[in-house]
Amino acid sequence: MKPRITVITIGVNDLEKALIFYRDGLGLSTEGIVGKEFEHGAVAFFDLQAGLKLAIWKREDIAYEAKVTLAPASPTEFTIGHNVSSKEEVDKVLEQAEKAGATITDPAHDTFWGGYSGHFQDPDGHLWEVVWNLAWEIE
Amino acid sequence: MKPRITVITIGVNDLEKALIFYRDGLGLSTEGIVGKEFEHGAVAFFDLQAGLKLAIWKREDIAYEAKVTLAPASPTEFTIGHNVSSKEEVDKVLEQAEKAGATITDPAHDTFWGGYSGHFQDPDGHLWEVVWNLAWEIE
Repeated sequence: MKPRITVITIGVNDLEKALIFYRDGLGLSTEGIVGKEFEHGAVAFFDLQAGLKLAIWKREDIAYEAKVTLAPASPTEFTIGHNVSSKEEVDKVLEQAEKAGATITDPAHDTFWGGYSGHFQDPDGHLWEVVWNLAWEIE
Repeated sequence: MKPRITVITIGVNDLEKALIFYRDGLGLSTEGIVGKEFEHGAVAFFDLQAGLKLAIWKREDIAYEAKVTLAPASPTEFTIGHNVSSKEEVDKVLEQAEKAGATITDPAHDTFWGGYSGHFQDPDGHLWEVVWNLAWEIE
């Protein structure tokens, strides 16, 4: 298959709370919650870079839609890697996330592969890695 | 922050098995497992569209690196949305995934919002939605 990933949807317990974190806290652009008129349809999309969106959707709605069993939160299922252009920017983004209510699980530090990174968990426990990596060209 | 998501890392139990699924089964381009010489470093990257990669990494290594507790698998934490350009392509991708060892939890069907989609779980239980959506321009 030709990969064309257009959306990363993360499961949340409280849509409004997640909206506030991503919109007001991290400053991601969004039209807010849409689809409330449909059962299991309430969702918010955030613009990432061109062609890619982040969506927040209730975990129970993912379970309903994908026909899987709703399971407890698990932080080791995935991480979202956010690349920035300097070490200072790593520090800034982590600070911004913490102010917005994130938990810094792994403060920024030099990595063994020559980069600089740290991790935070959003209010639903989802992990983000904020990373500066000289070897990965920023587009 | 200016969003620049470069990698979606998914936690797996068996790196080789996940590699076979994504490389041989789905046909995603990869250099295979790298970083074996580093403790907690073994990982494989797959090329998605420009500027975006999928990574597979052991769940226990995510836990170690991000300093969180290793938790049981949970299918309702996230989904990856893969957009295709026709209903037929949705069917084809789901068929390819199933042959590769995926579980089709939600067979392809017309959606209430005028699209056509289905879901599968990869060997580690991670959900993908394969979707045709006339309203979302394919880039």
